[in-house]
Amino acid sequence: MRQTFDESTDPSFGPRHLPRIREAMAEQGLDALLVPHEDEHQNEYLPPANDRLGWATGFTGSAGAAVIFQDKAAIFVDGRYTLQVRDQVDAATFEIRDLVDGGVTAYIEQAARPGQSIGYDPRLHSPDALERLRHAAARAGAILKAAPQNPLDLAWGAERPAQPMAPVAPHPLEFAGEASSDKRRRIGEALAQQGAAASVLTAPASLAWLFNIRGGDVIRSPLPLGQAILNADGTARLFLDPRKVTAELPAWLGNEVRLERPEDLPGALAELSGQTVLVDAAQSSAWYFEALGAAGAHVLRGDDPTALPRACKNAVEIEGSRRAHLRDGAALTRFLHWMATEGQASPPDEITAVRKLEAFREATGALKDLSFDTIAGAAGNGAVVHYRPTERLNKRAQSGSLMLIDSGAQYLDGTTDVTRTVAVGEPTAEMKARFTLVLQGNLALARARFPAGTTGSALDALARTPLWAHGLDYDHGTGHGVGSYLGVHEGPHRISKAASLVALQPGMVVSNEPGYYKAGEYGIRIENLQVVTAPAPIEGGERPMLGFETLTLAPIDRRCIAREMLSDAERAQLDAYHARVRELVGPQLEGEARAWLEAATAPL
Amino acid sequence: MRQTFDESTDPSFGPRHLPRIREAMAEQGLDALLVPHEDEHQNEYLPPANDRLGWATGFTGSAGAAVIFQDKAAIFVDGRYTLQVRDQVDAATFEIRDLVDGGVTAYIEQAARPGQSIGYDPRLHSPDALERLRHAAARAGAILKAAPQNPLDLAWGAERPAQPMAPVAPHPLEFAGEASSDKRRRIGEALAQQGAAASVLTAPASLAWLFNIRGGDVIRSPLPLGQAILNADGTARLFLDPRKVTAELPAWLGNEVRLERPEDLPGALAELSGQTVLVDAAQSSAWYFEALGAAGAHVLRGDDPTALPRACKNAVEIEGSRRAHLRDGAALTRFLHWMATEGQASPPDEITAVRKLEAFREATGALKDLSFDTIAGAAGNGAVVHYRPTERLNKRAQSGSLMLIDSGAQYLDGTTDVTRTVAVGEPTAEMKARFTLVLQGNLALARARFPAGTTGSALDALARTPLWAHGLDYDHGTGHGVGSYLGVHEGPHRISKAASLVALQPGMVVSNEPGYYKAGEYGIRIENLQVVTAPAPIEGGERPMLGFETLTLAPIDRRCIAREMLSDAERAQLDAYHARVRELVGPQLEGEARAWLEAATAPL
Repeated sequence: MRQTFDESTDPSFGPRHLPRIREAMAEQGLDALLVPHEDEHQNEYLPPANDRLGWATGFTGSAGAAVIFQDKAAIFVDGRYTLQVRDQVDAATFEIRDLVDGGVTAYIEQAARPGQSIGYDPRLHSPDALERLRHAAARAGAILKAAPQNPLDLAWGAERPAQPMAPVAPHPLEFAGEASSDKRRRIGEALAQQGAAASVLTAPASLAWLFNIRGGDVIRSPLPLGQAILNADGTARLFLDPRKVTAELPAWLGNEVRLERPEDLPGALAELSGQTVLVDAAQSSAWYFEALGAAGAHVLRGDDPTALPRACKNAVEIEGSRRAHLRDGAALTRFLHWMATEGQASPPDEITAVRKLEAFREATGALKDLSFDTIAGAAGNGAVVHYRPTERLNKRAQSGSLMLIDSGAQYLDGTTDVTRTVAVGEPTAEMKARFTLVLQGNLALARARFPAGTTGSALDALARTPLWAHGLDYDHGTGHGVGSYLGVHEGPHRISKAASLVALQPGMVVSNEPGYYKAGEYGIRIENLQVVTAPAPIEGGERPMLGFETLTLAPIDRRCIAREMLSDAERAQLDAYHARVRELVGPQLEGEARAWLEAATAPL
Repeated sequence: MRQTFDESTDPSFGPRHLPRIREAMAEQGLDALLVPHEDEHQNEYLPPANDRLGWATGFTGSAGAAVIFQDKAAIFVDGRYTLQVRDQVDAATFEIRDLVDGGVTAYIEQAARPGQSIGYDPRLHSPDALERLRHAAARAGAILKAAPQNPLDLAWGAERPAQPMAPVAPHPLEFAGEASSDKRRRIGEALAQQGAAASVLTAPASLAWLFNIRGGDVIRSPLPLGQAILNADGTARLFLDPRKVTAELPAWLGNEVRLERPEDLPGALAELSGQTVLVDAAQSSAWYFEALGAAGAHVLRGDDPTALPRACKNAVEIEGSRRAHLRDGAALTRFLHWMATEGQASPPDEITAVRKLEAFREATGALKDLSFDTIAGAAGNGAVVHYRPTERLNKRAQSGSLMLIDSGAQYLDGTTDVTRTVAVGEPTAEMKARFTLVLQGNLALARARFPAGTTGSALDALARTPLWAHGLDYDHGTGHGVGSYLGVHEGPHRISKAASLVALQPGMVVSNEPGYYKAGEYGIRIENLQVVTAPAPIEGGERPMLGFETLTLAPIDRRCIAREMLSDAERAQLDAYHARVRELVGPQLEGEARAWLEAATAPL
């Protein structure tokens, strides 16, 4: 089994680890220490060696921060994690506060005393965040001080897990679809157009995409930790620990890419003296800006130049994603068949469901990893948006309720992410009504046609309007980008209430996942991945319109649908989707599962 | 008649006026001069005395700019005005270029020669715009130079119309709904919370709203030109030309508002030395920033503190707007009856239609002004979004086509803005199909319910989705804010594709005006004003939702609707709106008009 169900921290972490951290702080003359969730690579999922916030506090959510004073400490999380933080963190040790709207800066301004030194690790903070923190400290009469060595790392000492050393291997052209040399050439030209001689790339996904390599340093995503300098002429320097370099890698990278050691990076940055260097302040920490500034380079702040090209998948990647979704759809359909038969006769607990689904995916023979830990939320657990089943929280599905299963897989040809919500026993009329509203939102977004230049924020309301009309909503985004055998959350595009300036462009893969959550009772989410299609004419129209092709192939539980709430057009849209699922997934199944799929995808 | 149909400029303006401007430039040692459309008050509509761009070029659109060199000149307009500029401006004198995406800065960078001095009038440019222009000039090796006196004004000389001197009078509490002292107190508190001791207000609408006064310096909007300094304690200094001050004004303003002369303003700004002063860089020109900087004040850039409170209408203003719309709806319905009877028998030309509609509004006895020049666009003229009928362009309505009429009125109790598109003869199937798509967008936006925090950009797509699905769209925003007996275009909210950070809030009035334009053939627009309603529970729901109350009351032409395209719910929504129109407007009509309204608002 890939997924585990233990808990890697407990509330004793804070009381046990804080004294050691404070001692190390004192040795460096620090009155306080900033502990962000982010690591040196600004990853969403951290290698255990870099989960400093988790070790210091016990909190394992995907976003947060802590501030540790000698005589007090606070942890900051957003609304998604208000329940989880109370479960994981000792509230006597850490005051629990809200992360949003400058929670950390407001706290520093109020908690710091004149003359105090607040330590930080410059490798962990973006320059913009640091600037705001610096101002907050100044307003309190305190100063921010870069710690020569992170006191938390010193306190962690021998107990700290080793840095990940997963081998970095070529990602073949049959999956990548474009040679690294071609990618480097066109990104290099874009750099030149911006007047930059080079760009420092620090996002592992950028390295993976640009050099057509994959690693395994971060669980659930095949990322190689490292850095690179891409020059405007397309040549590059790639900094990877030699222990991760596989035998075939140097030849794969070719002559234009110099493979170097991480300790060579500072010297390489110093060589950029006098040059204009593009760095993304959202991806690269203040350390890079300071190092380049000290070297006399002219730092140009801008978007990571690989982010948009990476998001717009090429034809080979899109075809790969279709294949991955065919395979994944068959595995998921086998699971849904099991849930609809054995799972009805004897409702499983969440962990059993997760294991069953993983086994079906493993049986494809192509599974490289899950793309994230499967969320199986029975009844009230389904209403916890960022739920992950553990031995302690594990709950058995209840008859007359719903189970929400959000899962995905990493295959060489593509990354999947799909949520289905299934009935156990007979759902209530309220469950069916709300499931249908969520479905209507999903269908509205899936069928949208829109002109070039339209952003995800402009389309977000399409998925919410049916819920809004009934006084309901969900407190998460409607869609996130997805990588190609890369991260399951990938920018720069998204579909959400937050204003976005990034237009949806052909080849972008994005999720469509409206939901509804009734605290303590049940959760509903319907999630498909979609790829943005090129502008195409519409009969009788004047302007070509972009649209979506749905990639995910798995039946949507007809038992949860209040048929009478759907318009004829909505029914036809769902029937057509189900016919596609039947046609494409059916031939991969046999016997009972195939017969079940026929019924599960029959017209409403 | 209030509206005129002449043209105030012609293409000879450029060749005739440019030599005089260049002479005045040379006397100040300037190689070039920047001529923005904006005047000292950043108004949308200019008093004739301030239409410098019009006098220099002949172009009368609502946005644009010119750059005049000694040996060349260029005019910059956006996509809305590409036809109009060629009609109004001598292309041999002015090169015609695109305003968007930094058109002026790119031109300066390319056209200026090293060592040249480019003159500007600091009262006419925002500090941000000026900064960009300064950089562009620097890249060309040229410098930007503030002209002690605007050379264009000197060249204009005695031909320049006099500055407007319309009397400024109290706007009674029965219309304003909140005493100026209360407004000043709460805005003052908001200033204090931002750490500001005062704010310099330069937008005429801000003065009108804050002091509950109305003027008439700008045609079509009751704006008093002037400036004010509002202090955090709620006291203020108001700078108005004494010739505009009516007898009752000083007592109306009370003891807390000191009435002063415009020439006292520089001294008053100098007195702000050492204080933190809030100024809106989008409303106030660089002159204010320079004057305050020179005085040693600390300038805090931020939104005009009256903008958001002004946009959120109070109960008295909303009730006033309902009254104004009742009255205006009756006038418009009389006009629509005329169009549907006499206008069918003998189709009118555009000017006749405009005069007829104005006469119906005048007959209410309450008309203070039109809120903008009525657009009546017959056939192909209807497809020109910013059309204004003139004797030269005037066209007779054609049988088998459409006429688009966009108009509005200024009443003491409210400002209206409404567009109806009516059939002349029998419209074609295509016209009806496209009218119906526009109507579906209008209905979708009108019935939207949405949670607090939703911006206009999030709702814009609701009005476009039906058109998008058929490969159609319109190239203007979906909705703009509207003042209360103030400007017909009022921020800070809007409903448009452009990203907005301003959430829609209860009391905001906003238009709902999707359209469709077939160049050379016909234009369709359906526009109602709506007021945002307070969050209210929805039966069976969990979260209170905001929504819209439609203010505009006038029938939508049933002859243009393809009934079979509407869903049952859409038909019911339209029928309910028409029933409201019948119920509220009907009793104001008599005889044939009333009978016609009965038929025109019958269920579909």
